[in-house]
Amino acid sequence: MKIDLNADLGESFGNYTIGSDSEIIPLITSANIACGMHSGDFMVMEETVKLCKEHGTGIGAHPGYPDLMGFGRRKLDMSPREVELLVTYQIGALQAFCDRHDVRINHVKPHGALYNATFNDRELADAIVSGIYRVNPALKVMGIAGGHLVAAAKAKGMTGIHEVFADRNYEQDGTLVSRRDSDALIHDPKIAVENILRMLVDQQLKTKDGTLIPIQADSICVHGDGKEALDFVKSIRHELQQQGISLETI
Amino acid sequence: MKIDLNADLGESFGNYTIGSDSEIIPLITSANIACGMHSGDFMVMEETVKLCKEHGTGIGAHPGYPDLMGFGRRKLDMSPREVELLVTYQIGALQAFCDRHDVRINHVKPHGALYNATFNDRELADAIVSGIYRVNPALKVMGIAGGHLVAAAKAKGMTGIHEVFADRNYEQDGTLVSRRDSDALIHDPKIAVENILRMLVDQQLKTKDGTLIPIQADSICVHGDGKEALDFVKSIRHELQQQGISLETI
Amino acid sequence: MKIDLNADLGESFGNYTIGSDSEIIPLITSANIACGMHSGDFMVMEETVKLCKEHGTGIGAHPGYPDLMGFGRRKLDMSPREVELLVTYQIGALQAFCDRHDVRINHVKPHGALYNATFNDRELADAIVSGIYRVNPALKVMGIAGGHLVAAAKAKGMTGIHEVFADRNYEQDGTLVSRRDSDALIHDPKIAVENILRMLVDQQLKTKDGTLIPIQADSICVHGDGKEALDFVKSIRHELQQQGISLETI
Amino acid sequence: MKIDLNADLGESFGNYTIGSDSEIIPLITSANIACGMHSGDFMVMEETVKLCKEHGTGIGAHPGYPDLMGFGRRKLDMSPREVELLVTYQIGALQAFCDRHDVRINHVKPHGALYNATFNDRELADAIVSGIYRVNPALKVMGIAGGHLVAAAKAKGMTGIHEVFADRNYEQDGTLVSRRDSDALIHDPKIAVENILRMLVDQQLKTKDGTLIPIQADSICVHGDGKEALDFVKSIRHELQQQGISLETI
Repeated sequence: MKIDLNADLGESFGNYTIGSDSEIIPLITSANIACGMHSGDFMVMEETVKLCKEHGTGIGAHPGYPDLMGFGRRKLDMSPREVELLVTYQIGALQAFCDRHDVRINHVKPHGALYNATFNDRELADAIVSGIYRVNPALKVMGIAGGHLVAAAKAKGMTGIHEVFADRNYEQDGTLVSRRDSDALIHDPKIAVENILRMLVDQQLKTKDGTLIPIQADSICVHGDGKEALDFVKSIRHELQQQGISLETI
Repeated sequence: MKIDLNADLGESFGNYTIGSDSEIIPLITSANIACGMHSGDFMVMEETVKLCKEHGTGIGAHPGYPDLMGFGRRKLDMSPREVELLVTYQIGALQAFCDRHDVRINHVKPHGALYNATFNDRELADAIVSGIYRVNPALKVMGIAGGHLVAAAKAKGMTGIHEVFADRNYEQDGTLVSRRDSDALIHDPKIAVENILRMLVDQQLKTKDGTLIPIQADSICVHGDGKEALDFVKSIRHELQQQGISLETI
Repeated sequence: MKIDLNADLGESFGNYTIGSDSEIIPLITSANIACGMHSGDFMVMEETVKLCKEHGTGIGAHPGYPDLMGFGRRKLDMSPREVELLVTYQIGALQAFCDRHDVRINHVKPHGALYNATFNDRELADAIVSGIYRVNPALKVMGIAGGHLVAAAKAKGMTGIHEVFADRNYEQDGTLVSRRDSDALIHDPKIAVENILRMLVDQQLKTKDGTLIPIQADSICVHGDGKEALDFVKSIRHELQQQGISLETI
Repeated sequence: MKIDLNADLGESFGNYTIGSDSEIIPLITSANIACGMHSGDFMVMEETVKLCKEHGTGIGAHPGYPDLMGFGRRKLDMSPREVELLVTYQIGALQAFCDRHDVRINHVKPHGALYNATFNDRELADAIVSGIYRVNPALKVMGIAGGHLVAAAKAKGMTGIHEVFADRNYEQDGTLVSRRDSDALIHDPKIAVENILRMLVDQQLKTKDGTLIPIQADSICVHGDGKEALDFVKSIRHELQQQGISLETI
């Protein structure tokens, strides 16, 4: 039994540093690298790709809305065609840094509000998938487990990756509890690990009100900002390995 | 005898339209396409690449300083490493649109103040060339005739393209007369054609004060904004063909 | 009987020119000046304020979403507090250019998607009004006739301006027909003038399906981009004056 | 005897936090607040102005080049007129937040590369001063001690503030040692205090090679990012008060 462990990275910008990229990259198997629109810049992308290569971490493009101030977390009413080409642009930009280091992009995962919007919006999901497909149909598509993005990728004959969150609570419909709510995050690593094992072994997700819904988990998202978060990741790694679940780039 | 005819294109942005791209692209053999930093955006890049493919026009990346308001015409004091990665990012972004249409980038020409700065600054020229080389060493590098950029490309074993201007006057040192000066531009197509033929046939450049200096001309830059400019390009094409000089992507 | 005639202006940016500001400003009584977020920049703001002063045209701040590529026409999911301070920032920026020329801002009208969103969203309307009020409670607030923005301004004790459109068709609920629909615009100045007179004299709005709904019209919005639009404005001015309706800044 | 103690603040942006504003503001007498071009945004400006009001800290506009990625530290080749209006825009934006809180801007200090460029460039200094003067001639102008900015302000009849740096080394010509050099910063608070007292009492500046040059010091710049810097500021405050020098907004 195996699982992929991913984190959003390369989110610094210019003089602004965010995240503990050099510490988290060795602990995960896939990195979602910001591409300069919602965060990240060409200096940061270079460093992040280099770190991933050094540690053999899988590289993913992490395209977001062109909204640096909002960090890509505010929905922007772009047309499907605009979204398709927005994604195209950002994948290409990251590809060039991979070319510099002779590595390849393995997957694409949209960021923030763009990611969330794909849960219910098939037209948007199709636009994103089309943007990815026409650049490189071999790229894998990571989306929220059970959402339209993975379905859209599979409909196109691409590999979809169902992603689940280690430290987030879920609503009954399988969406994430909003960050604006106080119970959005899970702070106890034990509960997080229980949740993960339940998803991996039983293929069931426990929502915040205790309901169990079926789920497929191909990759687990963790956060790596701050000492607490790093300890959290280490706990999860330890527990998974204890259970005989190996960590592998998907 | 043959020559390449190039123009800067894809410089519209969002709601703002500039240039007569659909009319000029069929008349030239190489297009320098803006990549979203000094102008251009992902919608415009898509349309421009598509037009180039339709007309068999050679595609070039046209990276500039990240300064939309200044249209990349204001020098920004970036370090060589910043410039190297700035160029990397923009080439990659354009490459994705070429991937969509199954065409390839043929050359790279820096834009505006970044272009001009390479005439005398070898360190900057080396940084740009390194940025291009590490993405794809087969890309050709277009720079001002006789300047450091072409020299830097050749030193790296790459193909350099000496570019001359059909409608610009030159200083005695081979640099362009600044756009701030009243005699920056040549408005008479006859004089322009005379200048071009002198450069092609005699390999001599006539500066604004009448001095002749040696020059190599591999590609001629024309402007395509407005009816007058289009007529200008048509005149040049006509005259060159009359002289038995064929127009070919370099 | 009198009416205010307004237009959105100062929407050029850097090297990009849009609109016929110098021709339209003498023909209108109020100018809504872009403030650098959805369009406009500090060079353009200076020129536009100067032109307004020269022609005695009333000056309005025209704040929009921070989305230059989308020209402020794409809804961005900002919180009410973010919107309040977004508006504050832009009013202040314009005020400085008015200070340079010893004129004052008379009104504020939100732009594009921000404007449209206020029709039904009272919380957003209150946020905008609060942003204006706390900078200067004497500023008038222009919003779509019958919408929440004017109501919110009046609730705060401020002067609200009901705005109607000369060249746009209306839905039955009093909103504008979307620009994406083919019947969004009225191209015939005669029909436009009939509509305007009906609104001014009978205080009735004829929607696109012929229904009459009650309306108050304090200011008429016209567009001034291109020769056709200028002729349109001149026709409207002529007709209104024929009917004895004088044009005055509100 | 008295002196002003200032710091650059409000430099966070969106999701990115920088500086220890709430801790440093109570310790200083003047705050230079970023205005959204090189850093800062409308949310941050609101919080920073509010903090300054609470602690009675003097408020200054801190306009910089429009280069967020470079944090305003890269020289951008703008014309004097562009710089004049760039400054105008930013002062106005900050003024609106002061209006919200019924406080006033006391001074203006350019940021980063714009600040440094005024040391030797009188035309640029005049442009900045003109931008400030035409918005409000009562604003004080803070510039590097002995440089052209203060001179330009005084020539215009405005109040100039000679600024010195507590934790920076100086070259023999009175400019700051570049941040790229290893000896740019002074880390020992004792040496910093000695330097400050020498400037205040003896009106002499000790350059990095030990030369003494005459200087006028009206305000001392400190940095407030991180615990070490806060301790540094506290040391300086303590020593100045020991010497009977009172801290007052200029």
